[in-house]
Amino acid sequence: MVNGYTGNILRVDLTKESVSIENPDEIFYRRYIGGEGFIAFYLLKELKTDIDPLGPKNKLIFATGPLTGYAIPGTGRNSVGAKSPLTGGFGEAEVGGHWGAESKHAGFDAIIIEGKAKNPVYLWINDGQAEIKDASHLWGKITGETEAIIKEELDDKFIRVAQIGPGGENLVRYSCIINDLRNAAGRSGMGAVMGSKKLKAIAIRGHKKLDVRNKENLRSKIREFNEVAYKPVSGYFKYGTGYGIMEQFATTGNLPTRNFRDGDFKNAKDLDPGIMKEEIGLKMEACYACPIRCKKIVEIGEPWNVDPIYGGPEYESIGAFGSNCGINDLKAVCKANELCNKYSLDAISTGVSIGFAMECYENGILTGKDTNGLKLNFGNADAIVQMVELIAKRKGIGDILAEGVRRAAEKIKNGSEKYAMHVKGQEIPMHEPRLKQGLGVGYAVSPTGAEHMANMHDTSIASERSIAVHTAIGILEPLKIDDLGFKKIRALVYYTNWRNLLNALLICYFVPWDYVDIPEIVRAVTGWYTSSWELMKVGERITTMARVFNTREGLTKDDDCLPERFFQPHTSGALSEIAIKSDEFKNAISNYYKMMGWDENGIPTKSKLEELDINWVSQYL
Amino acid sequence: MVNGYTGNILRVDLTKESVSIENPDEIFYRRYIGGEGFIAFYLLKELKTDIDPLGPKNKLIFATGPLTGYAIPGTGRNSVGAKSPLTGGFGEAEVGGHWGAESKHAGFDAIIIEGKAKNPVYLWINDGQAEIKDASHLWGKITGETEAIIKEELDDKFIRVAQIGPGGENLVRYSCIINDLRNAAGRSGMGAVMGSKKLKAIAIRGHKKLDVRNKENLRSKIREFNEVAYKPVSGYFKYGTGYGIMEQFATTGNLPTRNFRDGDFKNAKDLDPGIMKEEIGLKMEACYACPIRCKKIVEIGEPWNVDPIYGGPEYESIGAFGSNCGINDLKAVCKANELCNKYSLDAISTGVSIGFAMECYENGILTGKDTNGLKLNFGNADAIVQMVELIAKRKGIGDILAEGVRRAAEKIKNGSEKYAMHVKGQEIPMHEPRLKQGLGVGYAVSPTGAEHMANMHDTSIASERSIAVHTAIGILEPLKIDDLGFKKIRALVYYTNWRNLLNALLICYFVPWDYVDIPEIVRAVTGWYTSSWELMKVGERITTMARVFNTREGLTKDDDCLPERFFQPHTSGALSEIAIKSDEFKNAISNYYKMMGWDENGIPTKSKLEELDINWVSQYL
Repeated sequence: MVNGYTGNILRVDLTKESVSIENPDEIFYRRYIGGEGFIAFYLLKELKTDIDPLGPKNKLIFATGPLTGYAIPGTGRNSVGAKSPLTGGFGEAEVGGHWGAESKHAGFDAIIIEGKAKNPVYLWINDGQAEIKDASHLWGKITGETEAIIKEELDDKFIRVAQIGPGGENLVRYSCIINDLRNAAGRSGMGAVMGSKKLKAIAIRGHKKLDVRNKENLRSKIREFNEVAYKPVSGYFKYGTGYGIMEQFATTGNLPTRNFRDGDFKNAKDLDPGIMKEEIGLKMEACYACPIRCKKIVEIGEPWNVDPIYGGPEYESIGAFGSNCGINDLKAVCKANELCNKYSLDAISTGVSIGFAMECYENGILTGKDTNGLKLNFGNADAIVQMVELIAKRKGIGDILAEGVRRAAEKIKNGSEKYAMHVKGQEIPMHEPRLKQGLGVGYAVSPTGAEHMANMHDTSIASERSIAVHTAIGILEPLKIDDLGFKKIRALVYYTNWRNLLNALLICYFVPWDYVDIPEIVRAVTGWYTSSWELMKVGERITTMARVFNTREGLTKDDDCLPERFFQPHTSGALSEIAIKSDEFKNAISNYYKMMGWDENGIPTKSKLEELDINWVSQYL
Repeated sequence: MVNGYTGNILRVDLTKESVSIENPDEIFYRRYIGGEGFIAFYLLKELKTDIDPLGPKNKLIFATGPLTGYAIPGTGRNSVGAKSPLTGGFGEAEVGGHWGAESKHAGFDAIIIEGKAKNPVYLWINDGQAEIKDASHLWGKITGETEAIIKEELDDKFIRVAQIGPGGENLVRYSCIINDLRNAAGRSGMGAVMGSKKLKAIAIRGHKKLDVRNKENLRSKIREFNEVAYKPVSGYFKYGTGYGIMEQFATTGNLPTRNFRDGDFKNAKDLDPGIMKEEIGLKMEACYACPIRCKKIVEIGEPWNVDPIYGGPEYESIGAFGSNCGINDLKAVCKANELCNKYSLDAISTGVSIGFAMECYENGILTGKDTNGLKLNFGNADAIVQMVELIAKRKGIGDILAEGVRRAAEKIKNGSEKYAMHVKGQEIPMHEPRLKQGLGVGYAVSPTGAEHMANMHDTSIASERSIAVHTAIGILEPLKIDDLGFKKIRALVYYTNWRNLLNALLICYFVPWDYVDIPEIVRAVTGWYTSSWELMKVGERITTMARVFNTREGLTKDDDCLPERFFQPHTSGALSEIAIKSDEFKNAISNYYKMMGWDENGIPTKSKLEELDINWVSQYL
């Protein structure tokens, strides 16, 4: 306050075919910041309880942050939120690329999509103007075709497109939204919500120059980044995520293997992006204004025919389609990933759903009769590629798996439930909670169900570099990775709130901006005289608002759990005698609640809402 | 971590006549910072429950902060702590001057005094060496004489002396400790604790050059201060505290008048330091390395004979001896203040004790028989000067008032209790809680009893300048001064924790270093990669530890109260229809507990202690 930092929010009603522009005041901007913060605000404020996530009363919100669109490393992201069709609770996902920056340049901090179009439409936003356009000719098309047609018909190859493919149209519950063909707002099923609204795409073009309140300070931070902070993360430049860690993860038990069952995965290095570079060919590209360039591009010929316009697999995709399905054929993994981007499917949920089916198959719960003859054994590389197609098109067994593992197991029954690796209905990412036990608690309490984007990565507290950074928020001692004592939960609480701030600011975790840098950058851009205290509290505010949303939707502490599997050791490998201890886990959950200022049932207290200056939220409890 | 920032703590056992040096590790330094943080740590860790505050088992701790002794504006302070003889709970006071810096230059971050000397002693600390010396010849002497003799016998006029006068020797429960003859560690009765140990003084001389980890950053902050931040507070330079506000305070009802009874005080401007400058003569001096120079020096001839070596009265002293006793004779006030510094009495408690006696006298509860003929009417300037002497020497009615108003009222009885203006036994400072209602709640919950040094000053949230600063911790809207809603309590919680941090860092409130500056300064000096989050949590840690100390000593939520008077309006003036509303007050206290993470009885929860990384403290609950 009071620098007049505000902006425009675009509201689009697809039922009424209307668009309007809103200008919230500066306190709104400062209290909720952007991204996940805006999403938490609008979902709580505007959604009615108990609505169908795939019905017209859900709202789909695209949001940027105050730093989006500036030439600041790591800020080329946006987030998407809605009530999740996968969990029935708070749904939110972040995505890189260029679309978010383009949205800011077109004059919009956020876009709220309401209602449902009669026929398929897309939204065309051009320098402050918004238009709902017919998309009948695009419906059913894969993402690459759609983007090409839109650019062609609007006659501008620099247009940025966020869109769904057939996965979203077919309401696959974990369908994602794809930016620039190869960046996914992956989790929470946001693509299905977009599909349910018959909104095929949002195409954006903007030329607005963004204001900076203190140019010299911003320049100095970016210079500092380029000279100092960039070096430790410059490895991403060559190979992207996953490089050099596949074998190490397999050795330590951190690499999810055969549906999180096993602890041994031979030849894990076959899946390493280093191999990709040597044997397949690997190019790299960047999100908007980011020097790190961590995004892979792979091109593979016969028989896989992987088209480079769809990028290449991140670590999560490699794990989900690779080791988690018992596969070490990296080309097949690249193909499965490419299909996910063509069809707009979340690679994690897709891979974990296939892994689930494979374990059911190996245990005779699913048979060739169910799979139309497809041999769904772990390790069958052809099978995963075929399964992605079946899921996207909701064909055969794919139609069941398109519901996510929780609902699939409810249909399949016969003991399949114990192979459904999810929390709150969302499939578990590629970090082993038996090893990263703090993250395991994070999976359990995360408002979006199992996710790795809003919780602590235990290892980040264990290394020497990271401990130096984490002291800035008072984590003064290294923490053991497989520990759930109060010091770990304290770190989880602080780190979760911080990550939720980053999801509001839309700052990438790979960019080593830290607790000291980020307040300085926000100050330079917005002119707000802010501090890490204020910003950590923004993160806590968001974590808490998302929790209130879930509470309102009927989720309880019983939903803060993990699959039983994680309380048993791996069948083999480093964790063959190590698992999460049930009593320690329960205690950790309880401690997490208390440290968050929630009651014993995990419900935020009125005083906590007041302390976070969001007393209006208490009406929803 | 891990820059190796550590130091030396001196431990002195007066019973065993031994001295020793300890070196806590860096985590201790970073977790508790210094000052009030060290005091909270040692009092909890080392004092047994239920000890006599004036017995040999109490410990008296002098502590500096990480910035003390550097040429940084506003850091020339130290703190003193012990179990308080006034409240029976957590006792702590801060003091300006040069003694703290000298202690750092002599090589000691803190000094822990244990046991009790057989005969009066003083401590002589000289560049890392400490010696217990006989003080039989000093016992009974006023502070000015004692300092002169010590400098003479140690043959060094640059020695800095912290000491007690006869008030401390005579165990006046609100006796203070005097640095450099004119700076008082005023509250909590620390002088009585020193007197009980027969420790007359601590004389220090040091020449150590202090290390700075990032000199350029520190220089740049100080340059920034001199060029920008200094200006708004440069008014202190001419007249010190109280200037220009006496009449305004009287008009708004903020000036405590006739023992907090009345709201009208005619000719309040007679008490203004501006008048002091014009009619008495006023010089200014500074604490160590401070350009603000807010400390008054007054010299007055017959009949008052005020010696300038004892400085001059702050706003608190002017209020306590002036309007609070119905007096507008500024020269008499200066004399009373001088006597407090000679005898080592806390001016606030002394003035409020006399005001109490005056109201008793006017109501016939005390008579000439009790006062040995002294007419104790409000407005009797001679009487206040005589009363200071009687209290220091514990003569006549002075002996009863030397116990503080709570105990005095318990002795005097006959309805005098309702005139005893204290919280937890400590007398109320010169800010009207009917007007500054948030501060009123602060008085009630403060661990040391009524005090203005660890709580919010409501006005600081009301001005435009301060709101710009306070946004940095997320206080985004101006707050009404006479409001006790959740936004005010939230601000009180944040601000209390921040002030307790300042009391650990030993940074003066008059220096406009703020939430953004202070982490930068601490980073530059210590090399710690710290943030406002970490530092606010240090403050919260201290607030909480002090609360645990009080809980252990038997204080309960019933002690978090205010005198009944404040729930009734003034007899006249701006607040003749405004008072604290009892239900709002109770609700505010309860909200304060909850926002602090304490239970409904005001007892910190185990999870809060764990979140603050001080689980060891839970053993005391």
